[in-house]
Amino acid sequence: MSHHQKKTMRKHWLQISVFIFGLIIWFIPTPSGLETQAWHLFAIFITSIFAVIINAMPIFTSSIIALAAVVLTGTLTTKQAYSGFSEDFILLIIVAFLIARGVIKSGLGKRIAFLIIKKFGTSSLKLGYSVVAADMFISPAFPSNTARSGVLYPIVSALAADSGSKVSDGSRKKLGAFLMMTSMAGITLSSTLWLTAMAANPAGAKMAKEIGIDISYGSWALAASVPVFVLYLLVPWVIFKIYPPELKKTPEAPMIAQEALEKMGSIHKNEWIMAATFIGMVTLWVMSETWGMDKTAVAFLGLGILMLSNIFTLDDLKGEGNALGTLVWFSILYAMSKYLNELGFMGWVGEHISTSVAGYSWPVVYISLIVGYVFIHYFFVSQTAQMLALFSVFLSVAIKAGVPAEMMTYMLLFATNFNAIITPQGSSANVIYTGSGYIEAGEVYKVGGIVTLVNTTIFLTVGTAWMMFIL
Amino acid sequence: MSHHQKKTMRKHWLQISVFIFGLIIWFIPTPSGLETQAWHLFAIFITSIFAVIINAMPIFTSSIIALAAVVLTGTLTTKQAYSGFSEDFILLIIVAFLIARGVIKSGLGKRIAFLIIKKFGTSSLKLGYSVVAADMFISPAFPSNTARSGVLYPIVSALAADSGSKVSDGSRKKLGAFLMMTSMAGITLSSTLWLTAMAANPAGAKMAKEIGIDISYGSWALAASVPVFVLYLLVPWVIFKIYPPELKKTPEAPMIAQEALEKMGSIHKNEWIMAATFIGMVTLWVMSETWGMDKTAVAFLGLGILMLSNIFTLDDLKGEGNALGTLVWFSILYAMSKYLNELGFMGWVGEHISTSVAGYSWPVVYISLIVGYVFIHYFFVSQTAQMLALFSVFLSVAIKAGVPAEMMTYMLLFATNFNAIITPQGSSANVIYTGSGYIEAGEVYKVGGIVTLVNTTIFLTVGTAWMMFIL
Repeated sequence: MSHHQKKTMRKHWLQISVFIFGLIIWFIPTPSGLETQAWHLFAIFITSIFAVIINAMPIFTSSIIALAAVVLTGTLTTKQAYSGFSEDFILLIIVAFLIARGVIKSGLGKRIAFLIIKKFGTSSLKLGYSVVAADMFISPAFPSNTARSGVLYPIVSALAADSGSKVSDGSRKKLGAFLMMTSMAGITLSSTLWLTAMAANPAGAKMAKEIGIDISYGSWALAASVPVFVLYLLVPWVIFKIYPPELKKTPEAPMIAQEALEKMGSIHKNEWIMAATFIGMVTLWVMSETWGMDKTAVAFLGLGILMLSNIFTLDDLKGEGNALGTLVWFSILYAMSKYLNELGFMGWVGEHISTSVAGYSWPVVYISLIVGYVFIHYFFVSQTAQMLALFSVFLSVAIKAGVPAEMMTYMLLFATNFNAIITPQGSSANVIYTGSGYIEAGEVYKVGGIVTLVNTTIFLTVGTAWMMFIL
Repeated sequence: MSHHQKKTMRKHWLQISVFIFGLIIWFIPTPSGLETQAWHLFAIFITSIFAVIINAMPIFTSSIIALAAVVLTGTLTTKQAYSGFSEDFILLIIVAFLIARGVIKSGLGKRIAFLIIKKFGTSSLKLGYSVVAADMFISPAFPSNTARSGVLYPIVSALAADSGSKVSDGSRKKLGAFLMMTSMAGITLSSTLWLTAMAANPAGAKMAKEIGIDISYGSWALAASVPVFVLYLLVPWVIFKIYPPELKKTPEAPMIAQEALEKMGSIHKNEWIMAATFIGMVTLWVMSETWGMDKTAVAFLGLGILMLSNIFTLDDLKGEGNALGTLVWFSILYAMSKYLNELGFMGWVGEHISTSVAGYSWPVVYISLIVGYVFIHYFFVSQTAQMLALFSVFLSVAIKAGVPAEMMTYMLLFATNFNAIITPQGSSANVIYTGSGYIEAGEVYKVGGIVTLVNTTIFLTVGTAWMMFIL
């Protein structure tokens, strides 16, 4: 038997194990307090995630089979199962993908990438820090994670490509994979740092106000500042160690970038159009809430302008099958997670965690609840949905057990952000970066899992100490 | 100014005219009996179609700009505007696309194509007739146009490719464009012929029964038989004349096909898997109503199997950006058309047509109503929606004017099918074929328009005479 055949055989055995795993969970008697439908949905959902974690199949394959299972067993109606495809934020991810291609094709991505390399390009790690710093800097203006990754992704993508790291020729691990993973991790931090850096944050602050805890823009930033700062220093370095880029030191890169910039000459017409469109789009995204404009429609308009000016063409669209793949798998997982929540599964898990900690001292309750809240994000695709579903339950249990209410509130709201890298579907940003092909879904479970562990540990230690000091 | 620059300038002028056209319609005072919202939606919808007809921009560009306009002007809510993306039949089109790639890649498409060429391949016109005949033969078992085009498309696609007509190298007009246009036209005929060949047919028969007109499987087929037979002979020939393939006579093709078949040898493992999956899928599609299975989920399952057996891979998916493009433009146009209908625009037009014929003799009323019913399909994306919206209104007006009720009933139900090629979005089949790249959207308006004229003329003459004889 050839090596290739052995590998195929092994894959098929893994796939068979996945189906057996799924069948076992499916036929376990439904735990009391749950509808059978919710249990069956859970069985299919967890199986599809398991298949990706053990690398039995790609996330696309696993999701479409899960979709077929969910519909053909009657676990969800067709309307429910397909509902994710028309979610505006998912469509925004897809359009952001296409616009990113325009940023790169116009030459603007190259130019920005070279400018960054010229300034910070002497090592991969420094580039990683620069990307995260840029994100932290722009994030207060972006209450949409998705829109923000739509801005960062084309730049990171160009940074990778212009350093000779491409998906098409198998050199994704040279630099691109590392940079994108770092940027994904960075987005968990930038979202945690500012009240206005993620859609769920102000919603959570409002819910906190209802039980008498006032959170302002400043108090939020103050509480988050120290742990986020420590993590800003730590996380890119951790990723550099566990998911290293093949390209490490690049002392000559700034000079090469300088030369390349000179060769590019002055800004071309297409770059101007691209820049104007992009700045216009970003302005409308930032103002979207104030002006009541839909972010996705703004993105479609931007893409339309790029097409009318031939910066993004139908030929370019032909090569964007990955965007379709992303739309499909993410819509499916999103809908499953949404209905897991609506069918009461999430609440049931939350209550189990809550009751299991009753009677313990408050620090034990505090740590268990936060750890539980972080890991339950395995099943949530939407961070906002998790916050809306579990924030109040977890908070009230903690307060009853004597955990300082204000600290618990902040920690839950922070955790809503810093747990986002735990799965490839855990945040829109992950979806965009994973969709690029630079990062495999399975790698997010591993590296993202470790980053989540680091985030959680620092917040539970440094973060807790800091909040006990200031609150 | 270079030739290229002149062409670009001309395009931009056309685009500017489109926007002016749209603005004029938008600002025309809303006709009485209509909500302003409906009028505005009509203005955007008709502008996006106009842009494609005058070739100012591709249908994808025109649709996304229309979407942005519809949402940003508040004409539709975001939920309404994006609702098309989660329609199961639209997702079925997309999955059918991907499966077609599997049929071709596995070698099965090639083999079937060579078998057909071996038997009927001496001329392009003969191939066209064969494709339509095959469709007529399988159509009674397919109440879903979409599923049926999912079966025909990969075969027609392989027929084209194996005759050296490809999109990628600019030889689409050699044979593929002609064959696909012919198959699209053929589907309008096969759907008209059988009560069970299109989803709207049995629904229409049921509505007819409510006013006392009994339509059976046999009576339907009898009434349709003669005009459809005449059109079967006429339409491929008409398309051959007005949209000719560059490749006309191919006397040596059957021999080449024979040799190619011999060279292919016995059926390979991947072809077996593909065939088994495909037959399984088609069986479930045919039985879908009896067994209550969702056709789209069945297609997703089939695609999942193809992916597990590496017949369709993630690398293949990467190249399927066209499928994404199709999903986007079709979902957008579908949603706009749906809400044009729901907002009362379609009913308003229907009533105007109805009242404008009052007082005339019944043959005049009959012809005017049928012609009106056919051409109103310009605004309908769903054939079923048009039937549900207008069938009763048109029928009752006709009966009042003295048109024989049974004949009018049949004609309206037939027209629901034979008008389907009037626009690229007029039927799922058109969408699949146009999405292939072999046919341009603008060409459907032209050639499809003429075919619709031929269909309508034959039905109004031969069809009417035949029905007056048998009914």
